[in-house]
Amino acid sequence: MVIFALQESKISAMAKIRVTREFNFEMAHALWNYDGPCRNVHGHSYKLFVTLIGDSIDDPDNPKNGMVIDFGELKKIINREIVKVFDHTVVVSHLVEEDRLKAMNQMFGNVLMVNYQPTCEMLVTDFAERIIPKLPSEIKLHNLKLFETANSFAEWFADDNT
Amino acid sequence: MVIFALQESKISAMAKIRVTREFNFEMAHALWNYDGPCRNVHGHSYKLFVTLIGDSIDDPDNPKNGMVIDFGELKKIINREIVKVFDHTVVVSHLVEEDRLKAMNQMFGNVLMVNYQPTCEMLVTDFAERIIPKLPSEIKLHNLKLFETANSFAEWFADDNT
Amino acid sequence: MVIFALQESKISAMAKIRVTREFNFEMAHALWNYDGPCRNVHGHSYKLFVTLIGDSIDDPDNPKNGMVIDFGELKKIINREIVKVFDHTVVVSHLVEEDRLKAMNQMFGNVLMVNYQPTCEMLVTDFAERIIPKLPSEIKLHNLKLFETANSFAEWFADDNT
Repeated sequence: MVIFALQESKISAMAKIRVTREFNFEMAHALWNYDGPCRNVHGHSYKLFVTLIGDSIDDPDNPKNGMVIDFGELKKIINREIVKVFDHTVVVSHLVEEDRLKAMNQMFGNVLMVNYQPTCEMLVTDFAERIIPKLPSEIKLHNLKLFETANSFAEWFADDNT
Repeated sequence: MVIFALQESKISAMAKIRVTREFNFEMAHALWNYDGPCRNVHGHSYKLFVTLIGDSIDDPDNPKNGMVIDFGELKKIINREIVKVFDHTVVVSHLVEEDRLKAMNQMFGNVLMVNYQPTCEMLVTDFAERIIPKLPSEIKLHNLKLFETANSFAEWFADDNT
Repeated sequence: MVIFALQESKISAMAKIRVTREFNFEMAHALWNYDGPCRNVHGHSYKLFVTLIGDSIDDPDNPKNGMVIDFGELKKIINREIVKVFDHTVVVSHLVEEDRLKAMNQMFGNVLMVNYQPTCEMLVTDFAERIIPKLPSEIKLHNLKLFETANSFAEWFADDNT
């Protein structure tokens, strides 16, 4: 029994909620065969927003009560699967000429070769494929938003790809 | 009849439109039984984005012609139902021990006890339940986005909870 | 054959992706018959986010390989269809009294008369109608977000208007 006056607030039901955290990494890329200046190696400060959807845990004995996922746990997964893999790399298509690849590998410490053109669209597709199998089974990847520059971004949505 | 040259622009039909306004409030909370530092009282600068959906009013005699809702009216509703209730409060679960509750009530002027763990996920669920009955009948709450920190937020969507 | 060690990353399938670019323009408007200060001519720094949806091009011989649309091409279309039309104009409803229209046309160099009340909701509807017919046939306008002020915006979504 509380013996002093308190405001009270009650909710009637648990809800399905989306949770999002922002991540940042620095990455260089080159667009093989592109008809513009982006064909050359250049870098961006990428911003990645990861949005998960699930039911808030409804169990007062669970230390994660009221959460879809602990933001700290989400941070751990994305840092391990995405940020540590791509941060401070040069990402290039596997179609790049061997001479240029050798040169890049000598100039840059960390070349990451991918089987796609590393546009913002393809990177966000790759990230979705990497993240999905690493999530707890009761939580779904809802969408990813990847800023390549301050005013342009690409998004992958689960609902667009079912 | 206009007697000088003017550019003109015409639309062919009214559309269903979503309108959003951002709100800010300062709030402290403590997560009862959580296995991390957030178990202790701490504060955040919350940012809440309220998104409504409806048809733009199509009546030249209505002073709100062309609007889903006057942004000023939306501001009034959310300030009354959310900002004034939660701004500069300490929000705690009703499961908190009575001793700690008493201590908090003595230290802080404005303790708000809620029947849930006051995570970002649960707060946004509470806000949805508070806002929905206060909206004009022809306008629906589409979604809420609540930033707890500058890089993490939770979202409630009507479509996720039907 | 690559003769040195490289990390590799592979994706298994192309995805449907949304791409967005932000645009900015300065515009004045007056809301005819409105019951607030916005009835008078005043300006805003508008921010428009244009989101398209499509499949990333999957053709290594195409210079746009891996893109839904070249961001440069999107920029060209929106600058031509929206920014150049509305930037530094005064937008007024065709219902405005002729005297006021004449006075505005004398005071401001660039009055744009529209057949609607130029609220944020109606402007974004007009913009959608202008952009849709100018896009390549394989790409769809997914949504538009128009900030009128730093903390309020209206959105048009194709899915809300089918």
